Amino acid sequence: MASSSSLNLSQATLSRSAAHQHHRGSNRPASLTTSSLPTFPGLKSSSRAASTRRRSVRASASTSRRSVRASAAVETLGTTATELIDKSVNTIRFLAIDAVEKANSGHPGLPMGCAPMGHVLYDEIMRYNPKNPYWFNRDRFVLSAGHGCMLQYALLHLAGYDSVQEEDLKQFRQWGSKTPGHPENFETPGVEVTTGPLGQGIANAVGLALAEKHLAARFNKPDSEIVDHYTYVILGDGCQMEGISNEACSIAGHWGLGKLIAFYDDNHISIDGDTEIAFTESVDTRFEGLGWHVIWVKNGNTGYDEIRAAIKEAKAVKDKPTLIKVTTTIGYGSPNKANSYSVHGSALGAKEVDATRQNLGWPYEPFHVPEDVKKHWSRHVPAGAALEAEWNAKFAEYEKKYSEEAAELKSIISGELPAGWEKALPTYTPESPADATRNLSQQCLNALAKVIPGFLGGSADLASSNMTLLKMFGDFQKSTPEERNLRFGVREHGMGAICNGIALHSPGLIPYCATFFVFTDYMRAAMRISALSEAGVIYVMTHDSIGLGEDGPTHQPIEHLASFRAMPNILMFRPADGNETAGAYKVAVLNPKRPSVLALSRQKLSQLPGTSIEGVEKGGYIVSDNSSGNKPDVILIGTGSELEIAAKAAEELRKEGKSVRLVSFVSWELFDEQSDAYKESVLPAAVSARVSIEAGSTFGWEKIVGSKGKAIGIDRFGASAPAGKIYKEYGITAEAVVAAAKALC
Amino acid sequence: MASSSSLNLSQATLSRSAAHQHHRGSNRPASLTTSSLPTFPGLKSSSRAASTRRRSVRASASTSRRSVRASAAVETLGTTATELIDKSVNTIRFLAIDAVEKANSGHPGLPMGCAPMGHVLYDEIMRYNPKNPYWFNRDRFVLSAGHGCMLQYALLHLAGYDSVQEEDLKQFRQWGSKTPGHPENFETPGVEVTTGPLGQGIANAVGLALAEKHLAARFNKPDSEIVDHYTYVILGDGCQMEGISNEACSIAGHWGLGKLIAFYDDNHISIDGDTEIAFTESVDTRFEGLGWHVIWVKNGNTGYDEIRAAIKEAKAVKDKPTLIKVTTTIGYGSPNKANSYSVHGSALGAKEVDATRQNLGWPYEPFHVPEDVKKHWSRHVPAGAALEAEWNAKFAEYEKKYSEEAAELKSIISGELPAGWEKALPTYTPESPADATRNLSQQCLNALAKVIPGFLGGSADLASSNMTLLKMFGDFQKSTPEERNLRFGVREHGMGAICNGIALHSPGLIPYCATFFVFTDYMRAAMRISALSEAGVIYVMTHDSIGLGEDGPTHQPIEHLASFRAMPNILMFRPADGNETAGAYKVAVLNPKRPSVLALSRQKLSQLPGTSIEGVEKGGYIVSDNSSGNKPDVILIGTGSELEIAAKAAEELRKEGKSVRLVSFVSWELFDEQSDAYKESVLPAAVSARVSIEAGSTFGWEKIVGSKGKAIGIDRFGASAPAGKIYKEYGITAEAVVAAAKALC
Repeated sequence: MASSSSLNLSQATLSRSAAHQHHRGSNRPASLTTSSLPTFPGLKSSSRAASTRRRSVRASASTSRRSVRASAAVETLGTTATELIDKSVNTIRFLAIDAVEKANSGHPGLPMGCAPMGHVLYDEIMRYNPKNPYWFNRDRFVLSAGHGCMLQYALLHLAGYDSVQEEDLKQFRQWGSKTPGHPENFETPGVEVTTGPLGQGIANAVGLALAEKHLAARFNKPDSEIVDHYTYVILGDGCQMEGISNEACSIAGHWGLGKLIAFYDDNHISIDGDTEIAFTESVDTRFEGLGWHVIWVKNGNTGYDEIRAAIKEAKAVKDKPTLIKVTTTIGYGSPNKANSYSVHGSALGAKEVDATRQNLGWPYEPFHVPEDVKKHWSRHVPAGAALEAEWNAKFAEYEKKYSEEAAELKSIISGELPAGWEKALPTYTPESPADATRNLSQQCLNALAKVIPGFLGGSADLASSNMTLLKMFGDFQKSTPEERNLRFGVREHGMGAICNGIALHSPGLIPYCATFFVFTDYMRAAMRISALSEAGVIYVMTHDSIGLGEDGPTHQPIEHLASFRAMPNILMFRPADGNETAGAYKVAVLNPKRPSVLALSRQKLSQLPGTSIEGVEKGGYIVSDNSSGNKPDVILIGTGSELEIAAKAAEELRKEGKSVRLVSFVSWELFDEQSDAYKESVLPAAVSARVSIEAGSTFGWEKIVGSKGKAIGIDRFGASAPAGKIYKEYGITAEAVVAAAKALC
Repeated sequence: MASSSSLNLSQATLSRSAAHQHHRGSNRPASLTTSSLPTFPGLKSSSRAASTRRRSVRASASTSRRSVRASAAVETLGTTATELIDKSVNTIRFLAIDAVEKANSGHPGLPMGCAPMGHVLYDEIMRYNPKNPYWFNRDRFVLSAGHGCMLQYALLHLAGYDSVQEEDLKQFRQWGSKTPGHPENFETPGVEVTTGPLGQGIANAVGLALAEKHLAARFNKPDSEIVDHYTYVILGDGCQMEGISNEACSIAGHWGLGKLIAFYDDNHISIDGDTEIAFTESVDTRFEGLGWHVIWVKNGNTGYDEIRAAIKEAKAVKDKPTLIKVTTTIGYGSPNKANSYSVHGSALGAKEVDATRQNLGWPYEPFHVPEDVKKHWSRHVPAGAALEAEWNAKFAEYEKKYSEEAAELKSIISGELPAGWEKALPTYTPESPADATRNLSQQCLNALAKVIPGFLGGSADLASSNMTLLKMFGDFQKSTPEERNLRFGVREHGMGAICNGIALHSPGLIPYCATFFVFTDYMRAAMRISALSEAGVIYVMTHDSIGLGEDGPTHQPIEHLASFRAMPNILMFRPADGNETAGAYKVAVLNPKRPSVLALSRQKLSQLPGTSIEGVEKGGYIVSDNSSGNKPDVILIGTGSELEIAAKAAEELRKEGKSVRLVSFVSWELFDEQSDAYKESVLPAAVSARVSIEAGSTFGWEKIVGSKGKAIGIDRFGASAPAGKIYKEYGITAEAVVAAAKALC
């Protein structure tokens, strides 16, 4: 790895980590942080030779790139171009074979079959800077068939990414390595998104391509295409079978994401055997129905020119995404295991590795990269640096001419929030009109979108129920991609994964998405990946309890709050009124590496005295108290729409002479993170008389109310009836709280 | 409603409820129950006129039915046939309008647009017996667009189902009514499955059609088609957008489910407005790609003949499912709201109801069914009784000739388990070889499939990892539908919903389905509907923790156990070894109205002394104990693969002189259902020194270990490394248990 460029990576990493740090501390207002806007430095270390190559590379832009690259390749090679490419492709294959063999675990089949398209993409087509994996204008690549991650690790290694050194390849699937069993964006710079669960990656890619199209439409000028990159994906039969991919590809077709180019690894093998046993649809026809341009590369094993021609054709189709069906042989090169499920997910075994070495004429030691292959790939470090430097220069020009747009774009690239953004959040007094938190949420969304340039989102066909429309913007559509209201259709799972893609496109993009809270069940796999991959998506989840009434049990969440409280690295909020809703949004925006879920009411709620944004930041806090010495007779705890009920009960009990503390428990995760002293100040250990009320499962509440306390909740399914009736029948009432409290104190 | 037939309904209900009761008590062996096999009584109340009609109806079988029905209709009418049909269709429309208006809540748009196809289906096409909604050989109807449930309620009302009387229509969406806001099979006899969450219904229908195809292939004889019905669905744009429907329809095409006929209500409106904003794919083309036969009815509003012709054509295509795209106007008849989103999900309002009455020439009071319409529909009660009687007679013949098959089919129809079935379950001793519970599970699956005729299932492309193949059977495929291994492809969500359809087809069908435990996130919406709709699907979920090792955090469940423990009416099992796995299956089979989830290990586990099937039936039980007087020094609690670790810790502590109780907590739900005395005998209140260990979220464990106890678990995401290494790094070790125990006692 060229050490001369390591400074640039450090700078880039530093810049990214500063941006995130800036967001991160939820108790630290953005305006008080000291980090400055990123400087977009030119890469001064790039050599003259590199700049020369850069110019030739840039001259080849878009359609003519292929032929230029080919000639560039010829001049650097000792062997013929095709021989060298074969060698490079086999290097990829054997790095995968060797790493899986050493780990005795992993998936060699896909890398062996997809090495040719991987080679063409990373060596000939994609624009990236290996020493700054976070360069904004890079082409994005997503391996949706994430189990084949050795393909990507091999490519990152050859391309010169510092994240995947030879030692990392040897540590494949080992504790603490940069080369985990599936691609993890938070482990391996150069990996854009976390994949593995099938279908997620193609949906992420739709989000990445959406982000590009949106930003290009907003920021590009006739004299400066400052945003301009492609999004490439490799997906397999498994991804194709998953419903999420159909959802995402349907909306991608609708949106006309012309710079999304997906390679479908058509190898006819899945874990259980030939796809004939379960997957005989015509994928081509389906994608035509979805509004995609479809190309078939019949020889994906050695047909480099076919692959190149397909990409060229795909780029020429600007109003549709393209699916390039590439027919490959899984485990290509393995004489006895190719084209069988046995090569999908297991090491080949020493004997078959030998046979494959022989079959492909590969005399090298494990993990060896032949010198000529190394030399061939070595140009990507200077070329990538040059690409970024050129873009930086272009941006400097852009900034001079379009200072306002440049400032917005910088904020989106860096993730730095505009000073004082949080002042835009509305505040409320007890005199403010009662309102549903879904409506109060809409006030927050609209307030934030005005001050945060990267704030955008929408609903899965429930905008008018979720109250998620940004009133000052139109719809993001094929012909109006500069707008910020996303219309996802009834595609919750795709929506979540698309938002992960948007969030991970640029640190300053803050996507929100919405449906009824119960339908998080449709998108839970994507939400978990938000949490795992540190994608700070904001999930606006309305109709959060039996309070939605007549739609009945299929629409009434019960166990959902508990299910997210149990999930790592996600913030579950259940705000009670306007101030708490604003507080939830504040924390959500300040946590770009943790997704947030806001459970919001359909029904009107009072604005309660004592609620606050600051309170929300602590997760649990005292809303009102008539006790002294931290020794109330009883502590009443509520969340969301039931805080009001708990407040009524508190009032009643106080009238009867009790000292009652009312606590809002809006976010368990945030409360967990507070100091022991703070926790004791809210829930003193000596006070065991505690009653909680929440219109959801009591599962988990023992932790808060203790074994002597009482958790009022709902441990069965809901019912279809007007909301008030269900509340009464289910015992979610102030009377029940009063009775429980009296039984305890 | 003809009272003369009410006995038959009672009988039917009784028979069904007896069958379920028989299963239900999990502590009550099937062989000890007293209910007998159902008697398949002929319906003696059917009049001579009815039998006459029956014969003419039967004579018209399949393709010629339509014309015969039409002539039958003519003879009974005062007005012309078409006028009367218009009137019937408008009756359906106004019943929906009036019910939604009275509830001031609901979805009038779909029933108004789909009334014609609904009318044709229920009045002319479908074979059913209104007085026995559970008649085995009935045609199945699924309203996948469940929000339009007033369509189905109106049809059930007209057809003479006792479940939907006029009073029930007036109680639409009210507490305790038979007409909830979405169709619920457990509330309303005549509703086959619970729908509302979009896309579930069409996938359920695939399961219903699969069940028919399978049973027909197994039981029909050249001289007796004893199993022979269609499955009809209405789905809307929303269902089409959901990924689950693409999954289910793809596999339905693959399976060639020729008797599945789906009506796609192509009305161009979804909640957020015109489908133009998010849904512009060519559904026709997509379905052609999925291997369906596609027909377009251009005038769904009044084109009865087109609808009839489409159904005729669909029936003629026997090797493919058919999608009939029916272009309709949502809210047809409403002069100011038709064809707009405003009619989708809100009452029309008094003024617009009046305008619609005027527009459609409807002079009647709310909820009025005109006499001639009533009379027209009245034939379905006797005709349905005749259909069932005829089938019963046919079955009696069948039974004489094919007694063995008849016995199996009876068991499937009734849900009665063969005597002594549970003896087939394997048992183990501590000397039995250590094995992964996924492998032990396969032994159970194979044992059960041998003795339970309705036991069938499969995996979402992970059969060889989930260990779910039934070795004595082949694959259920288009040309081998009599087989019992289902190959779902990588379609978890569709798989779950298809299994719901199978389970709800017949009480004796027990479907199981499988994937990695973490991918329950992909199918959670279907699993919740299993729980809600009392579909006793068995979810075989392997690779249940960080113990799966190298695949890493995307594949390692953390919060999943907690998330299912919080869900109502579902049994979450985490068996520790062979006996516990067998116990989990025993309880699962005995609970046809509660789905079961089995979390199973990838890794080998020892067969532990003290585990038992009987213990599992209690949910939590003492595995070993060296204390006396119900006063151990410490209680160690484990589940699944960690019970072995807890056992090691117990041994260690006992060596050091402690009295230690080891408890397996294999199913929290079952333990919750035990008596207080039993609970005290396992977890005495006086013993607060409790340590639990489970390789999953600690969320919820405070309830078991108490505030003074210690829950050892994992509250962050997993990692990619060999399993043993992760266990050690995450502190899921006997040493950690010993240390925690010592700190407490």
